[in-house]
Amino acid sequence: MDLGIETNSVRDRVWMALDGFRIEVPSWGFANTGTRFGKFVQGGAATTIEEKFADAAQVNALTGASPTVALHVLWDLPGGKADVPAIQALEKKYGVNSGSINPNLFQDAEYKYGSIANPSAEIRGNALAHLLDSVEIGRALGSQDVSMWIADGSNYPGTQSIRKRIGWMEEVLGATHAALGEGQRMLVEYKPFEPAFYHTDIADWGMALELARRAGPKAKVLVDTGHHYQGTNIEQIVAWLLHLGALGGFHFNDRKYADDDLTLGSIDPYQVFRIFHEILSVGKDDQAQIAFMIDQSHNLKGKVEAMVQTVVTAQELYAKAALVDRARLAELQQECRLVEAEECFRGAFWQDVRPIVREWREARGLPPEPLKALRESGYVEKITQERNSQNARSEFRYA
Amino acid sequence: MDLGIETNSVRDRVWMALDGFRIEVPSWGFANTGTRFGKFVQGGAATTIEEKFADAAQVNALTGASPTVALHVLWDLPGGKADVPAIQALEKKYGVNSGSINPNLFQDAEYKYGSIANPSAEIRGNALAHLLDSVEIGRALGSQDVSMWIADGSNYPGTQSIRKRIGWMEEVLGATHAALGEGQRMLVEYKPFEPAFYHTDIADWGMALELARRAGPKAKVLVDTGHHYQGTNIEQIVAWLLHLGALGGFHFNDRKYADDDLTLGSIDPYQVFRIFHEILSVGKDDQAQIAFMIDQSHNLKGKVEAMVQTVVTAQELYAKAALVDRARLAELQQECRLVEAEECFRGAFWQDVRPIVREWREARGLPPEPLKALRESGYVEKITQERNSQNARSEFRYA
Amino acid sequence: MDLGIETNSVRDRVWMALDGFRIEVPSWGFANTGTRFGKFVQGGAATTIEEKFADAAQVNALTGASPTVALHVLWDLPGGKADVPAIQALEKKYGVNSGSINPNLFQDAEYKYGSIANPSAEIRGNALAHLLDSVEIGRALGSQDVSMWIADGSNYPGTQSIRKRIGWMEEVLGATHAALGEGQRMLVEYKPFEPAFYHTDIADWGMALELARRAGPKAKVLVDTGHHYQGTNIEQIVAWLLHLGALGGFHFNDRKYADDDLTLGSIDPYQVFRIFHEILSVGKDDQAQIAFMIDQSHNLKGKVEAMVQTVVTAQELYAKAALVDRARLAELQQECRLVEAEECFRGAFWQDVRPIVREWREARGLPPEPLKALRESGYVEKITQERNSQNARSEFRYA
Amino acid sequence: MDLGIETNSVRDRVWMALDGFRIEVPSWGFANTGTRFGKFVQGGAATTIEEKFADAAQVNALTGASPTVALHVLWDLPGGKADVPAIQALEKKYGVNSGSINPNLFQDAEYKYGSIANPSAEIRGNALAHLLDSVEIGRALGSQDVSMWIADGSNYPGTQSIRKRIGWMEEVLGATHAALGEGQRMLVEYKPFEPAFYHTDIADWGMALELARRAGPKAKVLVDTGHHYQGTNIEQIVAWLLHLGALGGFHFNDRKYADDDLTLGSIDPYQVFRIFHEILSVGKDDQAQIAFMIDQSHNLKGKVEAMVQTVVTAQELYAKAALVDRARLAELQQECRLVEAEECFRGAFWQDVRPIVREWREARGLPPEPLKALRESGYVEKITQERNSQNARSEFRYA
Repeated sequence: MDLGIETNSVRDRVWMALDGFRIEVPSWGFANTGTRFGKFVQGGAATTIEEKFADAAQVNALTGASPTVALHVLWDLPGGKADVPAIQALEKKYGVNSGSINPNLFQDAEYKYGSIANPSAEIRGNALAHLLDSVEIGRALGSQDVSMWIADGSNYPGTQSIRKRIGWMEEVLGATHAALGEGQRMLVEYKPFEPAFYHTDIADWGMALELARRAGPKAKVLVDTGHHYQGTNIEQIVAWLLHLGALGGFHFNDRKYADDDLTLGSIDPYQVFRIFHEILSVGKDDQAQIAFMIDQSHNLKGKVEAMVQTVVTAQELYAKAALVDRARLAELQQECRLVEAEECFRGAFWQDVRPIVREWREARGLPPEPLKALRESGYVEKITQERNSQNARSEFRYA
Repeated sequence: MDLGIETNSVRDRVWMALDGFRIEVPSWGFANTGTRFGKFVQGGAATTIEEKFADAAQVNALTGASPTVALHVLWDLPGGKADVPAIQALEKKYGVNSGSINPNLFQDAEYKYGSIANPSAEIRGNALAHLLDSVEIGRALGSQDVSMWIADGSNYPGTQSIRKRIGWMEEVLGATHAALGEGQRMLVEYKPFEPAFYHTDIADWGMALELARRAGPKAKVLVDTGHHYQGTNIEQIVAWLLHLGALGGFHFNDRKYADDDLTLGSIDPYQVFRIFHEILSVGKDDQAQIAFMIDQSHNLKGKVEAMVQTVVTAQELYAKAALVDRARLAELQQECRLVEAEECFRGAFWQDVRPIVREWREARGLPPEPLKALRESGYVEKITQERNSQNARSEFRYA
Repeated sequence: MDLGIETNSVRDRVWMALDGFRIEVPSWGFANTGTRFGKFVQGGAATTIEEKFADAAQVNALTGASPTVALHVLWDLPGGKADVPAIQALEKKYGVNSGSINPNLFQDAEYKYGSIANPSAEIRGNALAHLLDSVEIGRALGSQDVSMWIADGSNYPGTQSIRKRIGWMEEVLGATHAALGEGQRMLVEYKPFEPAFYHTDIADWGMALELARRAGPKAKVLVDTGHHYQGTNIEQIVAWLLHLGALGGFHFNDRKYADDDLTLGSIDPYQVFRIFHEILSVGKDDQAQIAFMIDQSHNLKGKVEAMVQTVVTAQELYAKAALVDRARLAELQQECRLVEAEECFRGAFWQDVRPIVREWREARGLPPEPLKALRESGYVEKITQERNSQNARSEFRYA
Repeated sequence: MDLGIETNSVRDRVWMALDGFRIEVPSWGFANTGTRFGKFVQGGAATTIEEKFADAAQVNALTGASPTVALHVLWDLPGGKADVPAIQALEKKYGVNSGSINPNLFQDAEYKYGSIANPSAEIRGNALAHLLDSVEIGRALGSQDVSMWIADGSNYPGTQSIRKRIGWMEEVLGATHAALGEGQRMLVEYKPFEPAFYHTDIADWGMALELARRAGPKAKVLVDTGHHYQGTNIEQIVAWLLHLGALGGFHFNDRKYADDDLTLGSIDPYQVFRIFHEILSVGKDDQAQIAFMIDQSHNLKGKVEAMVQTVVTAQELYAKAALVDRARLAELQQECRLVEAEECFRGAFWQDVRPIVREWREARGLPPEPLKALRESGYVEKITQERNSQNARSEFRYA
């Protein structure tokens, strides 16, 4: 039976793919999160940066695929650059490194009407200062990427000049780019709506790309899979960014309607497979430019459990994409043999890679079933007992 | 020039419409609100129930159209029924009455996996108890409606039995209905997503209608204009609920993509006009069954200012809808004279009713320009100075 | 490794599922189709009813799962009831039976402004006459279901009375129901938009259900998987209709944005799996009430090839759904063990059932790989040579 | 009362706006059109190019705003360049000029799998030849714009290489650009889906912009208002294209869900107003670069009647946008006085400009009410009698 792949090479391809696969976990993925209607706090949720490093280390120990943790400047380095030595100590202690540096320009009261696109030159200046701090922190930590999600926008037609704000953003991002050191990059993220509802200043990949280009060659585009309108063909955007040499990385998650920040592959796993296929279709050098990061909010699932599940799912979907017979597929595509091409492509998705991934884990000294290993480890019970996040005040929508 | 209406009757129709128009303001509309990413606190935001009554009274004084205020049990009557006398004292002091009673089944930690649809019989029992309390509060306050928004749902396929949960909801809602007194109603609201992302137990008007019918004759459907998928024809749902005698009321707001809770008519004013037209197409008795309520979150606009703006906009759009020449329109519709019917209909929307509404205000002893009057009154400056909500802790997404 | 199922029972469950699985093919699925921009004609496309029966028989011979073909009154029985003997002869000759009967109320010029909801009583009468003919044809052919897709609606606000049209539909559907014979049913389909763009008279499952109920007990709702807004949870609607005993059947297809009529499972296979899971969660008797039908337009893929691919995909996804350990899942759901429940559920989807399905085919005397068998059979080449549909005039949007 | 404008200047601003406003009508807007389910033919629909010129002239005579008609090469110049003299004779006879030239690359059977993105180099060559013909026709007619809507795409994941097709498009568009003469431009249109359903090669403004830039400086982006996902902020895209100097023009229409090609302003008139506001916010020279064109399919409305209605609506919405007090608005935006800015902005929309537009028409020697004048002219009755399009075969979906 033709499963769309040569059976004898399946194992090799999966192992090779898994050996090269890394996905960064976010420090905030271990903390209590919620919706605008409230937060359901978890006893074991991390509230300190050390707890976040500990949890990230646990995920990496179980999966072997997440050696770095994304940091959020405001929450993880409230002291700014002064906190760098403490972070470095944690890196050493827990064996996971700092990953991307995430500035925060959406939380301070002064950013109510925008940060880098605020009509006030003074506030834009403050935003720039925070971005420059973030660049410096990144350099100090040896981190490659400063990941910029700009929440700026407006809620009502006519209340802001969409066009003037473009110019203001160009200025700030250009100045940020100028501060980047050797080996540093800035990633410009886009999002169509939320928390701004009428217009978001960087709403789609086209706007992110224009701003990145204008800023300079070290600026690339960051694709958050949840930041698109319904029906958008995300893999096509990925293909375009690859074509243009402008794809810097991903924030992975899944969603059903809006930016729901659900577990990767939980709603539409076939879409993730298609995205990985586009990436695996370019050369190794181009692939190496793409940072894989998780950006999810597990409001109901256990924090560490959900993160392990995410990494495992990402590994499996990546392994499936590695099984696409791209040479054969190219022939069928060229000849427009549609059904055969589709079966060749989707056949790799139908392949159950779980047994092979399990073997690979064992060969690499990892637990064959990470979720089971987590349950058996007692880790979650331990942190639930030790940590006092249960006492964290539940926060609600209305005062 | 044919403006789609007989000019000599314009003034009469607008005045008659405005004399009969009432829209309820929500107590939570005066409090600090935000998105899941944070809250931008306002100095003058209300933090006590008295402040909310004061603000509601101010809106009513300026517009003459909002004599009731919707109450939220958990936030406004934390003591439950024991707080009723205090509320009654505020009604007297401020001259605005209690409107709909809104239970809260989404905030307590035990409702993490649902309230009236929770797999745990004990938790469902607690939810029922809260609903029964709400019914009792409503009766004690002489309020007609208990407005039920049920946030229950799940975030991931397979994690809950969608079908079993239907049965559980039927039980709780039936028991709630049984407790309703003379003149009381329960309104069942629907919402397609958020805060649950994969499935929301009461997701659309069909589900709300089934549950309301099963509960009993005093149960009606509540339409929140922001609770629909993109592209949904809301006025058609309104027409169906009117046809079935099942429309209990509205939560009015506007949105661009999701449930953004923006100011009514700020994004798509023509849609509001169309909804009002459907309502004005049925008999006076049927119209009288429909409660008009505002449910908005003004995160950036001034609280009182935005509420005045909302009531004014609602009045103007209602007045425009009152100008549709329904007899002429019916003829054109019957004869399928499409362009003429459309011009007859939309011609009323194009009519600038602001000068007539201004005259009506003056004749009724109201300020001719409520927003200007608010600015000149110094009310906002006063409450900003007096209230300490500026000191309210800004709350953010991640602990 | 725990794949979410007991390994030793996998084969039995798949075989049992496949033995009971039937899906009806549409006669129009073998004819030339297109978009509003044009039609790309295929040499082998069927243009006569005999050619359609021949193609349906070929699909059934290869898959063993499609013994009936849906008929379209206007296209397949242009002579109405007089054509029944000819159809019966084809049934005998090709060994496939007539399935659902599909009236056509969208094509005649008189239906420009609606059929059963047209303001003209005369035109509504003509529409009713066609429905009664369809019922009679169904009875004569021993077909169970009359499948009613009503395309009625309007393109512009104000041009039709949404509410009056509800009443007109109720009359016609009631009269149609009265004519149904023993064992006959009428299925009411819904669709949110296209070919009407502003309002479609039967737009969602709630409207279809109200109309079906009002018509009578033999009226059920038909779910076309492509007839929903983006983000709609279709399996939840299925669960509700099952709960209410009102689910009559499906028109299966897939889509990315609108009603694209793509191959089942080609865009979101996980969703199809979830729908099948809901169906397999109810009792055998309830399952027996649900008619599975394909409704797709393969504009680019080969007609017969795509239909075989569709049936094979449906079989595989149904087999996967049959592997869900529903007893275990119910426990995990009850205990709100979210990640475990999700893995139990999705684990069945990850299972590669293709080898087992292949074995089953061989045991049932069917070709192990239907698409390969089709290619090797030379059937497509044969019909391409024999048929003159190549000469069919290509039709375009603008005269 | 402050209506958001200085009353004494209202008339002048409207008149000035109207004097400068031109919008092109499409030749295909006078022909029979339909959905994929069928076409409802109209007796008076144009079937010859002369009839189309006659209808366009009639619209221009009534509105004074549509002196050019967009031509479709395949339908209006089936003989290619040889038909130019005939077109020039019609220009002279009817007093309307040729507007944009629209190639057709979606209708021929060879474009089944794409035109300029087809895997076959030969077919791409044919597509290029047609584009070069179109450029030559444009030059011969003295027409400024070649408007390119490329329908290319694929229906199923994996069936085509998204990335390779980008490169192929770049080649063809570059070669087309090289052929453009002095004063000629090429406009690159984008569309997210339909007739391709899984991926459309030029899906959004970002892709169109990249291709236009790569082609050369005479290539600009064309915005069709119906070619966006639900929720997209179109005026923001307009603002970006203006900022980048890359906006070539518009295809105006409206829609509720997909690319419904409804009458401009019929569903969301406020959005059209916002788009016009962005355009009126830039300098006169930049405004002059933007071609306004109508692209609508009136399947049910009378062809000429609907076109007159469209031009009138466009004039009125443009006049409203001209009333925005942009200096005052800029101040309020700068100071983030949200409610005041919104009222200033929307106040212009609320202004009923119909009486002023009527005066302007009279002053310019035009009928004060174009739709009424059309009805009184007997034009539609005349063409209905004279033309034989009633006999045009109604065309349906399935052969």
